Amino acid sequence: MNKYETIANDITQYIHDQQLEQGTKLQSLDQLMQQYNVSKSTITKALDTLEKRGVIFQQRGSGIFVRRQRREGYVSLLTNRGFTSDLKEFDITSEVLKLEKIIPDDNVKSNLHLKDGEAVYYVERLRKANDEILCIEASYFPVKLVPYLNVEIAQASIFDYLTNALKFNISFADIYLHIDELSESDAQLLALKPGNPALYLEQVIYLATGEPFDYSTITYHYKHSKFFVQATNY
Amino acid sequence: MNKYETIANDITQYIHDQQLEQGTKLQSLDQLMQQYNVSKSTITKALDTLEKRGVIFQQRGSGIFVRRQRREGYVSLLTNRGFTSDLKEFDITSEVLKLEKIIPDDNVKSNLHLKDGEAVYYVERLRKANDEILCIEASYFPVKLVPYLNVEIAQASIFDYLTNALKFNISFADIYLHIDELSESDAQLLALKPGNPALYLEQVIYLATGEPFDYSTITYHYKHSKFFVQATNY
Repeated sequence: MNKYETIANDITQYIHDQQLEQGTKLQSLDQLMQQYNVSKSTITKALDTLEKRGVIFQQRGSGIFVRRQRREGYVSLLTNRGFTSDLKEFDITSEVLKLEKIIPDDNVKSNLHLKDGEAVYYVERLRKANDEILCIEASYFPVKLVPYLNVEIAQASIFDYLTNALKFNISFADIYLHIDELSESDAQLLALKPGNPALYLEQVIYLATGEPFDYSTITYHYKHSKFFVQATNY
Repeated sequence: MNKYETIANDITQYIHDQQLEQGTKLQSLDQLMQQYNVSKSTITKALDTLEKRGVIFQQRGSGIFVRRQRREGYVSLLTNRGFTSDLKEFDITSEVLKLEKIIPDDNVKSNLHLKDGEAVYYVERLRKANDEILCIEASYFPVKLVPYLNVEIAQASIFDYLTNALKFNISFADIYLHIDELSESDAQLLALKPGNPALYLEQVIYLATGEPFDYSTITYHYKHSKFFVQATNY
């Protein structure tokens, strides 16, 4: 981890531990430079990172302020970084319904920028948070980027595997969402009734190189899915 | 508008006009400096702005690439900037159901950081896109920040009024969303049936000073609400 990232995480932890509220003024840039004994550019990079993550906002000439407002039970739609307790709050488990190597259809092929005949891992999982059904997730990973995947990995965290074992530098994502009535097959998996409200989410996640490595469609259980989004460039 | 913003908008327009696809390589930083005849720091600022807006991604040592993937009929959840055609595509109209000055309840008071007895404008609007009902929006604006509001403004664009007439520097937003079955009163307004799927969105929008100036709850019609979100710091 880079020095600026360590500092960013440290400040995040401090805000969390002290339970600082929205609008609380933090130390000045100079004070932070002294405290961490680093250059101005390192602190600036740490603060810009925190601003992007929605943890602080900076007001020129006036200071650095706490931004993040958590709300219990809401999960960030955009990132799984953030406050440790965001994750601690939920005990996420995954039941693997399917895992196979396939040649995908045109929609998946186009979203993952694949050539004819290029294979993907198809993984279907039922995800639970604190033993309540959260969603059904159908994911596609190009085999050329993810050469190996198994049930054990998919039961734990594919995200951890990609970042830690395969050293993926995950950079950005396009997310599409709409709501509709639940289909019969999805209703059965989610233990709901057809016609119940459903949130459908489609996402493409990219490496820093711009290569898409994950195309997923997710159907959320309407009673156990609350999200927050922080817009930083409104 | 600052020079870097003009350049950012110009590049956005170029990508749009040329219908450049995701992954297309743009001119180098040096070439852009020459083309616009500005300093490196101005171009860097323009490119950082475009990266934040999800229009491009930058890959160190390799270049600047087109990012934005539009999908017809999907509206950005996070911003109303962006491609002109994003807005042109939809003819948004607003029917004002209520507009009054009130002392708000504790929930609104807390979200807007109000003191006892501080008044807000309460505005309830039925919003349509291309004559189809899009949502019901209930918004609260502190009178101390928005001293004047009328039906004419609310029928047009409150956002334009705040930025153009009141010179608001709108900076960031916290958005909470969940899905549920539609209530009887909301169903009536949306011309739907109680129990139909509904997307409920709650948002607090802030000035660059960190002051919240808009607290809104929005109920979306499930057939006419499709959103995309671009995560830039996944």
